[in-house]
Amino acid sequence: MAASRAVRLGIGDDCAVLRPKTGCEICVTTDFSLEDRHFRRAWHPPESVGHRCLARGLSDLAAMGAEPLAVFLSLAIPARLPAAWVERFLDGFLALARKHHVPLAGGDTAESPAIARNRNGAILADIVAVGQVPPGQALLRSGARPGDRIYVTGTLGGAAAELAVLGRNPAKFRRLTHAGAGHPHLFPQPRVAAGARLRRLASAAIDVSDGLSTDLTHLCEESGVAAEIEQAALPVDPLARRQQNGVGLALHGGEDYELLFTARPSVRVPQKIAGIPVSEIGSIRRRAVRRGQITLQTADGKEIPVMPGGWEHLR
Amino acid sequence: MAASRAVRLGIGDDCAVLRPKTGCEICVTTDFSLEDRHFRRAWHPPESVGHRCLARGLSDLAAMGAEPLAVFLSLAIPARLPAAWVERFLDGFLALARKHHVPLAGGDTAESPAIARNRNGAILADIVAVGQVPPGQALLRSGARPGDRIYVTGTLGGAAAELAVLGRNPAKFRRLTHAGAGHPHLFPQPRVAAGARLRRLASAAIDVSDGLSTDLTHLCEESGVAAEIEQAALPVDPLARRQQNGVGLALHGGEDYELLFTARPSVRVPQKIAGIPVSEIGSIRRRAVRRGQITLQTADGKEIPVMPGGWEHLR
Repeated sequence: MAASRAVRLGIGDDCAVLRPKTGCEICVTTDFSLEDRHFRRAWHPPESVGHRCLARGLSDLAAMGAEPLAVFLSLAIPARLPAAWVERFLDGFLALARKHHVPLAGGDTAESPAIARNRNGAILADIVAVGQVPPGQALLRSGARPGDRIYVTGTLGGAAAELAVLGRNPAKFRRLTHAGAGHPHLFPQPRVAAGARLRRLASAAIDVSDGLSTDLTHLCEESGVAAEIEQAALPVDPLARRQQNGVGLALHGGEDYELLFTARPSVRVPQKIAGIPVSEIGSIRRRAVRRGQITLQTADGKEIPVMPGGWEHLR
Repeated sequence: MAASRAVRLGIGDDCAVLRPKTGCEICVTTDFSLEDRHFRRAWHPPESVGHRCLARGLSDLAAMGAEPLAVFLSLAIPARLPAAWVERFLDGFLALARKHHVPLAGGDTAESPAIARNRNGAILADIVAVGQVPPGQALLRSGARPGDRIYVTGTLGGAAAELAVLGRNPAKFRRLTHAGAGHPHLFPQPRVAAGARLRRLASAAIDVSDGLSTDLTHLCEESGVAAEIEQAALPVDPLARRQQNGVGLALHGGEDYELLFTARPSVRVPQKIAGIPVSEIGSIRRRAVRRGQITLQTADGKEIPVMPGGWEHLR
C-alpha cells in the first residue's frame, strides 16, 4: 500500500516509522479477531472477516476522537487455508482502509499452530490501530457528569439481528463481498469522521462494541455516575425491529460500532454528525448506592433497572 | 502498571493515549509468539515465554534506535490453562518491561479457539512495541554504502546452541525463572540502550532475529550492496563454541537479538556501547551481479559464499 504523509517508512524494516502532527498525542488500540470466537469460516465471507477486523480498531480510535494514522495486521493462518481466502480477507480489509484513508503500515504473519494431529490450526488476526489527537483532547470514558445528555450515532441492535439471520442461513450471505448499508453485522461502519467532530461536543465517549447496556455501564463506572435512558428514544435498527425482541437487541446486542457519547446540557448537538443521524436517548444522573447504574423509562411510564447484557461474541 | 510520563492514559479506555516528545517520530512493531511455533509449553518456563515475547518487540525498537514508549500485549489462552502459567508468563514479561522502564499500556485478551472437539486451544501472544525517535534519525536497513564497516553487539549463536540443549533436556531448565547472563535462548537481552547510542554512529542497522546470514542479507538487499565477513572476527558465543558447529550457529542461528550495524569508515566505533562489547566483523562491498551477497573469509584464507540460513523457529 502506498505510504501516506503520516507513514515515513512502511513494511520492510524492523519497525514502521510514523510522523504524527507536531504536538499531537498518539492513540493505540489492539483487538483480536479469532476464528470461532469472533467469526466462523462457514458463516462469514472472507471479505467480511477482514472488514470487521479493521472496523474494530478504527471504531476504538473514533471513540477517542482520534484521526487514524496507520494500522498493523498480525495474521496467523493454517497451512492448508486456500490462498483465495486470504486474498478475499485482504480485499475486505483494504477496502475499508482505503475508505478511511488509513495505510496498512506493517504487521506480522505466521502459520497458526495445529493443536491436534492431522488438524489444521485456526485463523488468528490481531489488529493494531494508531491514531493522533490534539494534546488533551482525547475523548475519555470518564468525563460524564450528572445532567449531561446521552446520545448515540446511527441505529442499535442491527448487528445482533443480522447475526441471528446469518446463523440460520449462512448460504444466503456467502457471496456478499462488498460493504454497504443494511449489513450491520457483516460490514459495520466505524464512525471515524463523526468521532473527530465529537472532540468539540462530547464530555465522554465509548463505542458500542459489547452492547449499549454494557458499554453505557463502562462509561458510568469510569465517570462515577448513573444513567437514565428512554425506551421510546432508542434508535432501534430496522433489522432488529423485525425480530420479536427488537428493543432487547438494541439494549444488549453488541458489535454495532456506533458511538455512545455524552454532552453538557448547554451544548447544542446537531441531529446529524458527519452525515450520521444522532439520537438523544437519555441523561446522566448522580450515582445511587443501592441501585443499578442504568434505568430504563419504558413506553408505558415504568422505570426498570437495566443490567449489562454481556455480549459474548459467538459463545 | 503505573503510568509513565509518556503514557497519559493506560488500560481502561477505548485506546491508550501516549504523549511522545514534541516533534519525535513514532516507531511501531508487532510480533507474534505462538505456541509450538515460537515456544513449547513442555520446554520453555512460562517466565521465559513472557520475556522472549517482549524481547522480540523491544529488539525491533532497538534496531531503529528508538526509545520505547509503551508496549501492548494481546494474549489468547486455552480455557483450561492453569492460572499459574499466566501469572508466571506475566512475571517474565513485566520483569523485562521494568528493566527497560517500559509501561504495559494495554492490549486484548481472549480465549483461544479449540480447533478439535475435546482439545484445548493454543497459547497465542501478539506484542506491539511503540517507541519514539528524533525526526529523521531512525536507523534504517537501507543506509549501508560500499566501504562501510560491519559490526555486531554481544555474541552470536548462543540462542541456537541453548535451544539444542533445551530440546535434549527440558527438565534441566524448568525452574529457571529469572533472566540472567548465560541464557541467550531463554532470556535474550534486547539491546535497547545500545540501539539509542547507535543513532550517532551507524549508517544502517537490523537486529539478529533470523540469524546473521539472513539478517545481513536483508540489510544488503535494502541497501543494494554486498558484504564480506571474516570468520576469525565472528564473536561466537561460548555456548556455541562447545558445539561441533559453533561457527555455523553463529552464522545461521536465530533469535540472538543482537544488533547488526554498519558505520562509515571515518566513524570511530567504540569497543563497548552501553556496556555491551562490539565486534567489527567485515565490510560492505559493491553489489556484484553474479555472486551471492555475502562472502566469508575463512580462517585459512578462502573466500566462500554464504547463503541465508533461514532460521525456522521450532519447525
